[in-house]
Amino acid sequence: MPSPALEAVNHTLARIAERDRDIRAWTSIAPAAARAAALASPEDAPLYGLVLGVKDVIDVAGMPTSHNSPLGHTAPALADAPCVAILREAGAIVLGKTDTTEFAAAGRNAATANPHALHHTPGGSSSGSAAAVADGHVPIALATQTGGSTIRPASFCGIPALKPTWGLISREGAKLYANSLDTIGLYGADFGLIDRIAAVYGMAPADPLPDRLKIGLCRSPAWGMAEPETIAAMQDAAARLRADGAEVVEIDLPPLFDHLAQAFHHILFREGAAAFLNLARSEPHLLHADFHARVASLAQISDAMLREAYDQTALARIVAEALLGQCDAFLTPSAPGVAPEGRGPGNPVFNQMWTQLHLPVVNLPLYRVKDALPLGLSLVGPRFADRRLIALGQKVLGLLGANRPLDL
Amino acid sequence: MPSPALEAVNHTLARIAERDRDIRAWTSIAPAAARAAALASPEDAPLYGLVLGVKDVIDVAGMPTSHNSPLGHTAPALADAPCVAILREAGAIVLGKTDTTEFAAAGRNAATANPHALHHTPGGSSSGSAAAVADGHVPIALATQTGGSTIRPASFCGIPALKPTWGLISREGAKLYANSLDTIGLYGADFGLIDRIAAVYGMAPADPLPDRLKIGLCRSPAWGMAEPETIAAMQDAAARLRADGAEVVEIDLPPLFDHLAQAFHHILFREGAAAFLNLARSEPHLLHADFHARVASLAQISDAMLREAYDQTALARIVAEALLGQCDAFLTPSAPGVAPEGRGPGNPVFNQMWTQLHLPVVNLPLYRVKDALPLGLSLVGPRFADRRLIALGQKVLGLLGANRPLDL
Repeated sequence: MPSPALEAVNHTLARIAERDRDIRAWTSIAPAAARAAALASPEDAPLYGLVLGVKDVIDVAGMPTSHNSPLGHTAPALADAPCVAILREAGAIVLGKTDTTEFAAAGRNAATANPHALHHTPGGSSSGSAAAVADGHVPIALATQTGGSTIRPASFCGIPALKPTWGLISREGAKLYANSLDTIGLYGADFGLIDRIAAVYGMAPADPLPDRLKIGLCRSPAWGMAEPETIAAMQDAAARLRADGAEVVEIDLPPLFDHLAQAFHHILFREGAAAFLNLARSEPHLLHADFHARVASLAQISDAMLREAYDQTALARIVAEALLGQCDAFLTPSAPGVAPEGRGPGNPVFNQMWTQLHLPVVNLPLYRVKDALPLGLSLVGPRFADRRLIALGQKVLGLLGANRPLDL
Repeated sequence: MPSPALEAVNHTLARIAERDRDIRAWTSIAPAAARAAALASPEDAPLYGLVLGVKDVIDVAGMPTSHNSPLGHTAPALADAPCVAILREAGAIVLGKTDTTEFAAAGRNAATANPHALHHTPGGSSSGSAAAVADGHVPIALATQTGGSTIRPASFCGIPALKPTWGLISREGAKLYANSLDTIGLYGADFGLIDRIAAVYGMAPADPLPDRLKIGLCRSPAWGMAEPETIAAMQDAAARLRADGAEVVEIDLPPLFDHLAQAFHHILFREGAAAFLNLARSEPHLLHADFHARVASLAQISDAMLREAYDQTALARIVAEALLGQCDAFLTPSAPGVAPEGRGPGNPVFNQMWTQLHLPVVNLPLYRVKDALPLGLSLVGPRFADRRLIALGQKVLGLLGANRPLDL
């Protein structure tokens, strides 16, 4: 009789065999190594029996890191990235690599389909990790976020996610894109799993939540981009939170925040120039034009503009923290609307500001709209209070219910 | 008759054969590959004929990255770190790896000696790269700086150095220690070489310097740590700059800056916890106690303290930039004094604040004191004006003269 861990691996492999011809979540898997790891894993390990997918911009020992690029590596990585090594050490079984937007940034799309509607995108750049969890291949997966690459696919695929506070999880061994923004992201079939992973990464336990929640409704400077379903979702969630006894207050961000989208662009492109300069020089023809555009920003975005972008961002971090001190969390859109058709990554306009502010974000898989496509909303908390935010996410999801049909 | 590039390699190898038994700058070298690269290099490449040493926390394809640690890699790296690849693409000849403080952070010292006095330290953590340039093995070398690991060894060894603005050079493929601080550093036999490297990295050319320089004398909150030679050096440099016609003004940093040393410590240790958590879990007995101390900071330095540290640092960046706008550069110590005896890295107290503020710093090898030990001073400029700072460094070094005996 197989061990529970081996049963979990066998379940994953059966599900992949059944589904991944259509879903295409995976770029490479190592079944024999996963079975061996399952058999070797002690049953009292914190993540015993959990099979893990790893976005294919993050190194896993013995597997190539493709970056979904002709410039990716074909030789196996020498070592696990620390974010993988820590989960493996805690008992997680690393099965393989999941498809991604090229270098988790731009260029080529992942081949992955949205499990809820195959001709729609799962969102990017963490396309394969989000789809693999949403389609029941694996219970947990690693993602990354520089703009909205963890939270938006979670919204499109209808799964819980955490974009942690910047810097809490080492991003060594993951492709560097924009160093002041890049963050390792977490997907889980439920928030309990995400909290177990956060604990393994050394994040502090949460203080107890108050009996009466105080939620700040933050439509954000991108509100003009919200599609009808996102507008309806924000209205519904606010109304039902109030009906459930929560205090819901409107958050008006000061004018400083109106400059953050431009500041984000300047930081993203100038940091991206540093990240892709080597490939622009050594393999200009194989490097996608999107990355040459980052390098070209060295001439287009002046040092003075970049300084201003960093300083506006730094001040907004301090102001956002003060505003967050007045409530338990902000409720804000996870995406303009449901997953569009095709394979594009989607628009990060509702995610990038929170990444820029280094704040933790969870996606709540609250709604189903149109052809049963998922739609999530985000909760945003203060820096380093990640596990409190996970607990809040679990509580609010419990109050409002998951996957509720949304009337438009 | 050998090509100039091959002659350069042969010169380096002869110098290493003669000197490195005593200096111990190098952890590994690849002579055959360097000779082949020299022969293959086009003479019109921007860095043609320049032999490069690389600190052994930075990946070089085909060579192991030892990190001077029992937990370093024994298998060769699959690819050059981008900071290496860009120089190689521009014609630099990568000879090998230079010794370092363990993981460029703490733990074990490099075995390297100070070329000016073998029983003194070259400083750390970039010990081997600094000594290899100072001892005439190579004209250029790559370093890193998280506290003072580039500038302080340059002062101890008497060579020019640039600690660039944070983020201008990709730090992918170099050991991550503290992500908001880690910076790739540059050593050169003269500032002209450092400027050629900076140009290759895509840094913008400098505007012309004014005829009359305005230098801000910044003793910094660490001034109480200055030893007699550093006090004398600051007095001498200020007096002779004035005699040369420069305007020298006193910079009084506001009280906010008095908190930065504690903020630096909190950021360094908490970011270090993220960087070393994997090794603390997987190889607790082989990981040096210094790194366990970083991981222990997760419990000792609260999230609130870390938030305050980041916010104080962010505000100080904005204030420092405004103060720098009133002069061409700050003149400030590079180290408390000359290189101490032994092999320790030295005290980063005069460097860490500038790293924390993301500002570019050059070391000027101005003085010789005591047993002919070198002593440098730093110039600090605004973010992203790195090549202007290099030009200023060259100009001030020309005005004051290099390696001048300092009377105490």
